[in-house]
Amino acid sequence: MTNQEKLEKIKEKIDIDNQLSTALTMINWDLETEAPEKSVNQISKVISFLSGEKYDNYMNEEFKNLIYSINVDELSDIDKKIIEIIKEDYFEKIEKIPKEDYQKYSELVVFSSQTWAKAKQSNNFDMFKNYLSEVIEYNKKFVKYRGWEGHPYNTLLGDYEPNLTVEYCDKFFDKLKSDILPIIDNVVSKRKNNKELQEAKKRLISHKYDLNKQKELSNHLMDILKFDTKAGVLKESEHPFTNGTSKNNVRITTHYYENDFRSAMYSTIHEIGHALYEQHIDDKINETPAGGGVSMGIHESQSRIYENMFGRSRSFIKYLYNKIDDLFGISKLNIDKEMLYELVNDVDKSFIRVEADELTYSIHILIRYELEKEIFSDLNSVTDVDELAKKWADLYEKYLGIRPETYSEGILQDVHWSSGLFGYFPSYALGTANAAQIYEALNKKTNIEEDLENGDFSKIDAFLSDKIQKYGKLKTPDELIQISTGEKFNPDYYVNYLKNKFVK
Amino acid sequence: MTNQEKLEKIKEKIDIDNQLSTALTMINWDLETEAPEKSVNQISKVISFLSGEKYDNYMNEEFKNLIYSINVDELSDIDKKIIEIIKEDYFEKIEKIPKEDYQKYSELVVFSSQTWAKAKQSNNFDMFKNYLSEVIEYNKKFVKYRGWEGHPYNTLLGDYEPNLTVEYCDKFFDKLKSDILPIIDNVVSKRKNNKELQEAKKRLISHKYDLNKQKELSNHLMDILKFDTKAGVLKESEHPFTNGTSKNNVRITTHYYENDFRSAMYSTIHEIGHALYEQHIDDKINETPAGGGVSMGIHESQSRIYENMFGRSRSFIKYLYNKIDDLFGISKLNIDKEMLYELVNDVDKSFIRVEADELTYSIHILIRYELEKEIFSDLNSVTDVDELAKKWADLYEKYLGIRPETYSEGILQDVHWSSGLFGYFPSYALGTANAAQIYEALNKKTNIEEDLENGDFSKIDAFLSDKIQKYGKLKTPDELIQISTGEKFNPDYYVNYLKNKFVK
Repeated sequence: MTNQEKLEKIKEKIDIDNQLSTALTMINWDLETEAPEKSVNQISKVISFLSGEKYDNYMNEEFKNLIYSINVDELSDIDKKIIEIIKEDYFEKIEKIPKEDYQKYSELVVFSSQTWAKAKQSNNFDMFKNYLSEVIEYNKKFVKYRGWEGHPYNTLLGDYEPNLTVEYCDKFFDKLKSDILPIIDNVVSKRKNNKELQEAKKRLISHKYDLNKQKELSNHLMDILKFDTKAGVLKESEHPFTNGTSKNNVRITTHYYENDFRSAMYSTIHEIGHALYEQHIDDKINETPAGGGVSMGIHESQSRIYENMFGRSRSFIKYLYNKIDDLFGISKLNIDKEMLYELVNDVDKSFIRVEADELTYSIHILIRYELEKEIFSDLNSVTDVDELAKKWADLYEKYLGIRPETYSEGILQDVHWSSGLFGYFPSYALGTANAAQIYEALNKKTNIEEDLENGDFSKIDAFLSDKIQKYGKLKTPDELIQISTGEKFNPDYYVNYLKNKFVK
Repeated sequence: MTNQEKLEKIKEKIDIDNQLSTALTMINWDLETEAPEKSVNQISKVISFLSGEKYDNYMNEEFKNLIYSINVDELSDIDKKIIEIIKEDYFEKIEKIPKEDYQKYSELVVFSSQTWAKAKQSNNFDMFKNYLSEVIEYNKKFVKYRGWEGHPYNTLLGDYEPNLTVEYCDKFFDKLKSDILPIIDNVVSKRKNNKELQEAKKRLISHKYDLNKQKELSNHLMDILKFDTKAGVLKESEHPFTNGTSKNNVRITTHYYENDFRSAMYSTIHEIGHALYEQHIDDKINETPAGGGVSMGIHESQSRIYENMFGRSRSFIKYLYNKIDDLFGISKLNIDKEMLYELVNDVDKSFIRVEADELTYSIHILIRYELEKEIFSDLNSVTDVDELAKKWADLYEKYLGIRPETYSEGILQDVHWSSGLFGYFPSYALGTANAAQIYEALNKKTNIEEDLENGDFSKIDAFLSDKIQKYGKLKTPDELIQISTGEKFNPDYYVNYLKNKFVK
């Protein structure tokens, strides 16, 4: 077989993988956003079946031989990258896991995440804990199959951020602990003593915000942030997320609460940030293994830069105030532009990560990081999930001085563990640190604040698209930070950004 | 191999067919209700791929041998039926079509129906006509592959109603032509001369009906008609439809218009009727080839009995009036219960089938029947679709004395041809005739009108479930009519029902 023939055979298989992955994503999307309760059983069987087909498509000697025998020196850069990605994602990862486990696990997480949503709504940890336990133990088993270097948790961290290690994370979180943790108390108490702010907050949250008007705000945000509605959809789910099968099919969700428009507003902006990354992937790698975001750290940098650096900026709030006032009449609540800015940057020690302010946010991540690191420090003993729920509460008490009184405010709050996404959380904090650094670089190029005040995202959109998003997986996260900022990753930007915003 | 081993092997294949069919249905559902425009290309490839997998799963010598060599005398009644259905639906139908055509066609109808929706919205027949032509010619080719007895159109008619023939349809439609057509003019002109009614109608359609309140009405209807929302979902689409993968996963759509709540209301009721059929299938045949409705004639009997015999009855309108008034304030439009009854039974010569009154409805079907019969009378010449659009208009002029001035009001109005559903339309008329007969039988058993006036569908639900719906494909349409009415099919009930309602 010539090298070209090998390449063609490989591409046929990639095509099949695309069809199966797309089908799986669409079925999962349906499951998370609208599937009726009684259908879950049948749909989980479909997911298991298609996952098995996906496994078999690549995991066979014939395909493996093609991948390892093709002469990559003769290939284009993109094809070279594609071969590399298949080796890493499949033969160094999934192939180590027996098909039976892979398929059972794919079925398990369907039930697990469905049960989690119900358990969270009813604050019923008992309902969920056997699933949580099973998902954890499967992940330990998978780490054992796959092997690890250094700390076993490294294997999982690397799934979301290439080569990320406990050693690196420890240093990063230590910096946050030493630089951010000590200033929180002071910022919080200053705010608590600001009567005007506290009164305004009370007025804000005692008002009702019509859900249809909140939806209108979401539509407005999609419009000005340049989400392409011909290549994407916004819906609702218990936990907001982004899902997609190509640049032309990006699905995002948000979650509306009647007593506070801020929650859905920032969820929507956050997910739009993720969506823009996917929508801006270069055409020539779209629907190939090199398409899609390169790592969760970079992905979260895109969502968090929109949510925080842009979305919670004074300039953008100045722009958006009139729209918000038109929809919800907040001027009648005696909330002006500056007060709205303060209210979307309210700093408080609170339980819910996705609602947290920028300053305390990384502490929420730190807590999850410490818990996950401990879970995977010993692969041979079974994690006591009741104990884990207690440790969750203990760490909130230790770092934020507050103790969740319900499971829904504690261990049940996030969807991630129910779907087996262990190792994901650190990328939120790393992503935000990336975002702060990218924001600084962008700020040097163009007057962002002026653009934000005009609701004009065109230069921002072009910069992120050109320096980061279009590359998909063609560049490493480190390379993307270098290209977009001209420097290596430097967490000082993050710390300085937070200090500038909240302390000065 | 023992007979039992053969059965087990067959059931494994049925299982795979279930997973693939479920995946296809879910992806189609997404496509029809929310998929963004630019994703259609990718999704059509997935549909083509999964259709190919579905084809290969059954269409091979090994499976065929199992199906034809298993000793059916040793099987349970249900398993016997399942083997019979697989023979009929696959080896006497799909197997005759080469895989390449089958797959290409499955991809074609995705683009065709997507394009149809756009063409209809913009009244642009040029945009759609090449697709229509291609779909028609594929269907001719399929009839040639499959063969036919008598008229070639019989093969397609039989896909929706077993053994239905042109000969039978001709007789049935001739009866409607001779019994219904002559009375339309009189009924229409009486109504036109009823000033009070005409004024009320003007007031009704010049009002605006909030879409969220219309959705609330849909939810109320689902509730009282006993649609199980834990086993189904209601959404929106250009053309309302019902789709499902099992009794636990039934999806229905409706279409809201701001200037008239009646349209969505009756679409919703119609689709709920379809959905109840699927939701009431007996557990022991659920997710087997014997699950699901037995024919479109029976399926439409369930949707049309809810839509018309129940939904447009004076008793039900008496019940629903208060809810409708609460939502839309129609009493302020000076429309009382009796006037609302008249308005939901407005008889007029109009262009749109799905909006048509009960009296003229079958004429809309007659027109489509005559067109389809002509299309498939000659399989060897290519149908001129411009000519077809003209013939559509000609027939409206001939039978109803009105000529559509736009394509959207003419040939573009229905989704069916864009998806290749030739042979389907007659089942609407046959189904309504079935419905009239079933209604009479039910009326003898219980005081339906009293129940309807109380919004109490429990006895109706139990009767239809027990006499028809639970059986799925275990009984033939003829047997179901016999079981539910104690008689053979008799179209006199339909004619008498219409005469009683509209002439007396």
